[in-house]
Amino acid sequence: MQPVLAELLTIGDEILYGQIVDTNSQWMSSVLSEAGIRVIRKTSVGDREDEILTALAEAEQRADVILITGGLGPTNDDLTKPCLVKYFNSRLTMNEEALAEVTAFFKSRGRELTELNRQQAALPANCTKITNALGTAPGMWFHERGRVFVSMPGVPHEMKRMMKETIIPKLQQTFSLPVIHHLMIRTVGIGESFLADKIKPWEKKLPPHIKLAYLPSLGEVKLRLTGTGSSKEVLQQETEKLAKELEPLAGEYIYGYGGDPLEVVIGQLLRSRKLTLSIAESCTGGYLSHLITSVPGSSDYFLGSMIPYAYEIKMRQLGVKPETLEKYGAVSEPTIHEMANIVRAKFNTDIGVATSGIAGPGGATLEKPVGQIWIAYSDKHKTVTRKLQISNDRMINIRMASMAVLNLIRLNLPPA
Amino acid sequence: MQPVLAELLTIGDEILYGQIVDTNSQWMSSVLSEAGIRVIRKTSVGDREDEILTALAEAEQRADVILITGGLGPTNDDLTKPCLVKYFNSRLTMNEEALAEVTAFFKSRGRELTELNRQQAALPANCTKITNALGTAPGMWFHERGRVFVSMPGVPHEMKRMMKETIIPKLQQTFSLPVIHHLMIRTVGIGESFLADKIKPWEKKLPPHIKLAYLPSLGEVKLRLTGTGSSKEVLQQETEKLAKELEPLAGEYIYGYGGDPLEVVIGQLLRSRKLTLSIAESCTGGYLSHLITSVPGSSDYFLGSMIPYAYEIKMRQLGVKPETLEKYGAVSEPTIHEMANIVRAKFNTDIGVATSGIAGPGGATLEKPVGQIWIAYSDKHKTVTRKLQISNDRMINIRMASMAVLNLIRLNLPPA
Repeated sequence: MQPVLAELLTIGDEILYGQIVDTNSQWMSSVLSEAGIRVIRKTSVGDREDEILTALAEAEQRADVILITGGLGPTNDDLTKPCLVKYFNSRLTMNEEALAEVTAFFKSRGRELTELNRQQAALPANCTKITNALGTAPGMWFHERGRVFVSMPGVPHEMKRMMKETIIPKLQQTFSLPVIHHLMIRTVGIGESFLADKIKPWEKKLPPHIKLAYLPSLGEVKLRLTGTGSSKEVLQQETEKLAKELEPLAGEYIYGYGGDPLEVVIGQLLRSRKLTLSIAESCTGGYLSHLITSVPGSSDYFLGSMIPYAYEIKMRQLGVKPETLEKYGAVSEPTIHEMANIVRAKFNTDIGVATSGIAGPGGATLEKPVGQIWIAYSDKHKTVTRKLQISNDRMINIRMASMAVLNLIRLNLPPA
Repeated sequence: MQPVLAELLTIGDEILYGQIVDTNSQWMSSVLSEAGIRVIRKTSVGDREDEILTALAEAEQRADVILITGGLGPTNDDLTKPCLVKYFNSRLTMNEEALAEVTAFFKSRGRELTELNRQQAALPANCTKITNALGTAPGMWFHERGRVFVSMPGVPHEMKRMMKETIIPKLQQTFSLPVIHHLMIRTVGIGESFLADKIKPWEKKLPPHIKLAYLPSLGEVKLRLTGTGSSKEVLQQETEKLAKELEPLAGEYIYGYGGDPLEVVIGQLLRSRKLTLSIAESCTGGYLSHLITSVPGSSDYFLGSMIPYAYEIKMRQLGVKPETLEKYGAVSEPTIHEMANIVRAKFNTDIGVATSGIAGPGGATLEKPVGQIWIAYSDKHKTVTRKLQISNDRMINIRMASMAVLNLIRLNLPPA
């Protein structure tokens, strides 16, 4: 089976001039790749007719599917639609269904349809309209000379909805695509190269139709298994069996499978075990609480935090003993130990966690360099502390220390 | 003067398969644009020789400068260097200076130079080496057939250092570039279309050599003036004069000029006026404190926060009166009023601010829909409250409410 090849074409001066980061094409690439379509090129051009027409002609030579985003706004500097009309030697006709949709869209927002927006429903005669559930510019599907061209708005949530609901299913109907299955294995608490070393024997035995990708980001490493074959069920069984075989080698680092990040997994653990959490965070300055509360429904298990940034607040508000602070300093094991225990008692929760360290760039001493961060976990059975030495970068220190606390919760939470 | 045209070429399967977001090309575009070079196209291809060679030949037809990133690692799947050798019909020779640099790089990290890494110092005979201060793969500068080709590593901080220190200066020497001057005007507290309406008379009078761009993001709108001419000083005076003329129309929304975001500007105001800040944040869950503490040195003015997420913590830890909570609820003007005053008193700071609302998606009632958020500011002279109605999206609500609090501080801070 010949692979189906795709090219992504992004239209708009704002991308060429660096005014926005193009996150659309990363999202589209991963969705296409999951559907078994190979992206061979990405091209961005500005709002100029000659450059758009050239890029379309070049893409048609290389790819089976050309996915175009951007340039569909109602104003004169949006050129995608007139260029497609010219490229296919077609003409604009009012699409009554699109007109009804854009009229309803304006009505639902209590606004009148302007003439400019009415013109958004005029589409090239040779295209199939794609409904835009979240905006005013319809998508367009062209099937010409054995190629599929799709034009979508550049607004991310409008494009994503169209891709998921209409375009991927239509591509699956149009082409005979290989069956692809992905399994994401999520790890925390180990760096990429150490993990690679540990799982080398397992990686060597992977069958040729199942590929492994390392996807590292700040504080975690994701492993993605991608199987290609003819049966979704078989691939699912094969990848799950491989994931099981990984557990003896790296099980302690695996916190989940699939799409949920660590803060969501921690939330599920706390909710299912009916445990509550409070936080005393100093050097992480609110970021750890933000991670926890970024999860909808986190008020089920998270009761609150104290951010005792200043020395006096650590003493007077949180209640760390002045002797401890004076003798050992704020960045020390005795202080972090007290912080986790005190916040748990004060806030009357099952679990208390704490952070204190030198986020940098200032504040370092000879014994306590930038990046030295103490973290602690406390429940009614035990208190666990860890000393981290992370980096010279403030944001990296804040992010990595927060991820390390989430991992400490995962590793120490009492069983259900 | 003919504009100098650039094309960006990104090489690597990880971009085509959607494993990483390409933030390099956005950064490069904005730096080139500031230097007066017009980016006309961005292209991404995979790690395949034929595709790389084709993309190079196409770019040479269109652009004066071709900037290539990626594919410079030491392993066999990194093809950029062999492709450049083939493209220019050149050959690899060991570059002694590059070898000394890569050897020193390994030595400084206490590691032995491997043969694979030694080979990174072998460069095409027709190129000028560009020092990589932060990594092992040197950059390469080719000046052939009237075009400049530059190859750089894909690692963002390595690429950025090379661009700033070597490539932009070399491009300025090689080409006669127009003088460009940018002035960024930063606004908060008004949406893009309302701002556009207010400043229309000013915008209409802009001279043709000074362009205006609207750069909206969550919670703020930046206005960028870009002047093109022959004297940096004249352009600077012209744009500053225009910025002054904007103040009668929109001065209350302008919080700064240049690169500093709102949390940095607030920090500068607090530090220069010797004022301290504490926060009681409920629905923003730590994000507001994180914004404040993301600024290095924020411990000079930020003393601490309480995140009273649960009802009991609002009462028992923060100290909101049970009668207030029972009568008006947590999301109400009397409660937010108390929260800001109490945290200021408890933490003994000059300023206290507070947030309480329905971040969503759950928690709404008939009178209190998702996105309803109360914020408050308190100092010894006054307490100010605001009711916001933001959106249905949890993260947008958290971000916009936090920005609104920063703006409330800006507007109410007692003068120095």
